[in-house]
Amino acid sequence: MRAGPSQEEIRRHNLGALLRHVHLGGPTSRAELTTRMGLNRSTIMALTADLTAAGLVREELPRETGRAGRPSLVVRPESARVYVLAYDIGVDRLVAARVGLGGVILDRRETTRRRGVFAMENEVERLAAFTGQMLGKTRSDTVCVGAGVAFSGGVRHSDGFVRFSPNLGVFDIPLGEELERRLGLGVPVVVGNDANVGALAEQARGVGVGSRDLIYLHGDVGVGGGIITAGQLLGGHGGYGGEVGHMVVNAGGRPCGCGSHGCLEAEVGERALLEAAGRFGPQIGRDAVRAVVDAADRGDSIAQEALARVGDWLGLGVANLVNIFNPEIVIFGGMLREIYLGAAAQVRSRITTDVLYASRETLRLRTPMLGDDTTLVGAAELAFARVLADPLDALARVGA
Amino acid sequence: MRAGPSQEEIRRHNLGALLRHVHLGGPTSRAELTTRMGLNRSTIMALTADLTAAGLVREELPRETGRAGRPSLVVRPESARVYVLAYDIGVDRLVAARVGLGGVILDRRETTRRRGVFAMENEVERLAAFTGQMLGKTRSDTVCVGAGVAFSGGVRHSDGFVRFSPNLGVFDIPLGEELERRLGLGVPVVVGNDANVGALAEQARGVGVGSRDLIYLHGDVGVGGGIITAGQLLGGHGGYGGEVGHMVVNAGGRPCGCGSHGCLEAEVGERALLEAAGRFGPQIGRDAVRAVVDAADRGDSIAQEALARVGDWLGLGVANLVNIFNPEIVIFGGMLREIYLGAAAQVRSRITTDVLYASRETLRLRTPMLGDDTTLVGAAELAFARVLADPLDALARVGA
Repeated sequence: MRAGPSQEEIRRHNLGALLRHVHLGGPTSRAELTTRMGLNRSTIMALTADLTAAGLVREELPRETGRAGRPSLVVRPESARVYVLAYDIGVDRLVAARVGLGGVILDRRETTRRRGVFAMENEVERLAAFTGQMLGKTRSDTVCVGAGVAFSGGVRHSDGFVRFSPNLGVFDIPLGEELERRLGLGVPVVVGNDANVGALAEQARGVGVGSRDLIYLHGDVGVGGGIITAGQLLGGHGGYGGEVGHMVVNAGGRPCGCGSHGCLEAEVGERALLEAAGRFGPQIGRDAVRAVVDAADRGDSIAQEALARVGDWLGLGVANLVNIFNPEIVIFGGMLREIYLGAAAQVRSRITTDVLYASRETLRLRTPMLGDDTTLVGAAELAFARVLADPLDALARVGA
Repeated sequence: MRAGPSQEEIRRHNLGALLRHVHLGGPTSRAELTTRMGLNRSTIMALTADLTAAGLVREELPRETGRAGRPSLVVRPESARVYVLAYDIGVDRLVAARVGLGGVILDRRETTRRRGVFAMENEVERLAAFTGQMLGKTRSDTVCVGAGVAFSGGVRHSDGFVRFSPNLGVFDIPLGEELERRLGLGVPVVVGNDANVGALAEQARGVGVGSRDLIYLHGDVGVGGGIITAGQLLGGHGGYGGEVGHMVVNAGGRPCGCGSHGCLEAEVGERALLEAAGRFGPQIGRDAVRAVVDAADRGDSIAQEALARVGDWLGLGVANLVNIFNPEIVIFGGMLREIYLGAAAQVRSRITTDVLYASRETLRLRTPMLGDDTTLVGAAELAFARVLADPLDALARVGA
């Protein structure tokens, strides 16, 4: 515990706070910022002037308000000028995007990925090629302030080193370092677990806005969890928390890629569903999962039974998490979106049976507002974190 | 986000911070406080003078240091003068204590409790009677700054209202209000879940000192969890988080008091162990659990098998929690202390099988340093929180 902050520290904190307001809330009038931030008008003016001079925001007259009197200027993020690079590395796809301040996806490239071991140099090369294409189209006065990656695996938070990814078949690879080197843009690359950044994205811009206690479950081949409790992302001692996919829900059940049996991801993952539906074969991935849900909708009893079974295990896993975390919202993302929509009755039934009433009464179950871009948007938010924490310092570091 | 704090706010914050240092760390020299708090000597002197004037600390010459030069004065909490009342309400016992600043148990009363429904008025009366006995023995210049309760159940954090306690057979009872009224001391009564406050106690004064990510598991008839992540106690949206006892580990397993089946507490609770050992009968409670562990130690194969089975489920539950939270330490308290000590091999084996390596490599398993007083000490820390947050304001509120 230290002495109070200096005036300069307070100013830098407030610059970040104001920028965060317009980054997350969109164009906001000075009057509104005054109210929301609890600062006086002259302080807001001075902060806005500093951010404008730095090229991070601009001020505009608002559209017609219909009210008498001089309208308050609107502060707007410089979305077209200040951006980050965002990457989403999943089992089945690689996505790269340029995302402007304010969360605007300015440009986007996506390719499917053949399943199998993540060949780092090769795949980083493909992301770099996408980046080159996108950068070739940017205006010369734009500024890249960072890069973020959503990765399907366990990532050391200090340096973006991937510790494990059973589903991408890799352990201990320096992904952040390699991408930073290959991009050669002089901007830091921050790597996060896909479910973790998905949770941040839905909290910042999705169904979780305003919630301080939410769980985002991300289904890919496996199942990951991003858990926000009391407003903070659960990291744990080394940053490997949230591995809800390896919670054993069916002791002695299906074998899991982690070496154990009956893990949540072994019981509700893509393969469990497809096998139960008698459809495990060359057709895999999201489309194959959707096909089972569609078949169940059309009355196919084998598909219905498969979905009910997987939904029951999913419900049991979610019930456990709700008893443990007492969240306000649980969000089913990635492939789990389809499974949840197809088996909501089973999931809800388990929650009714297994969750203590006090935690159940306020619970909401949702699908992501950001759809399949949840993890990509989360990667962008990772990259924006530094400029929001200390805008002028972050710009200075990238030489802008 | 608001403007920076005022000078007065900073002073109050620093008074609390200094008091917390000596409350948790014991007598500390001014020089050491200067270093640890990052404040200059004159500020430390002024803060100490204020706390001394308020009767919260006193300064003394240190014992012989053996070093040349004028020794730095030592700041010591006024443990005999400033105290809280702490209560521990478990299934099998009621404890009341007077705990001095610095965490010293000054006086203590304990009685066993017959199992069965918690009859609030009656049991509060017994705690009040203990309190009367203890207060009759205090000096007239002492000050009670608060009261805290550890309760075996789910408690609403805002007002100490007990929402549920399957093992004490009650729902929705105004425990905090009733005890506050019955004590009539004009001090606030704060109520917390026993496992939650146990986690706080072991972090403040036990095996968890210095750890920001720990899990305290408390076994009584049931199993509760107190989870600290990134230094903060997990509460969840309504404060009912941490109910790890109702995590289903054995789907379709033993019936649980909550209405579900195969919950952790149904599989590793006292009854599960005693039944597996063929000893479920009139002899219950901690002694009966110890008797099984002792019998296993002496080579009784039925007791060994019972313990191995319960230990395996306990290990599975802990493995799930470690994958989810990536804690630094897991602490086995209450009745789980005995079970863990008797079945450590099974617990460790499950962790080896089921926990991802990155979370396993830094994990430590421990028993409570505070022994059977963990929850009682936690109740005291709950009560001290207000005086540590704003010492002068807290004293003013109790009229001291």
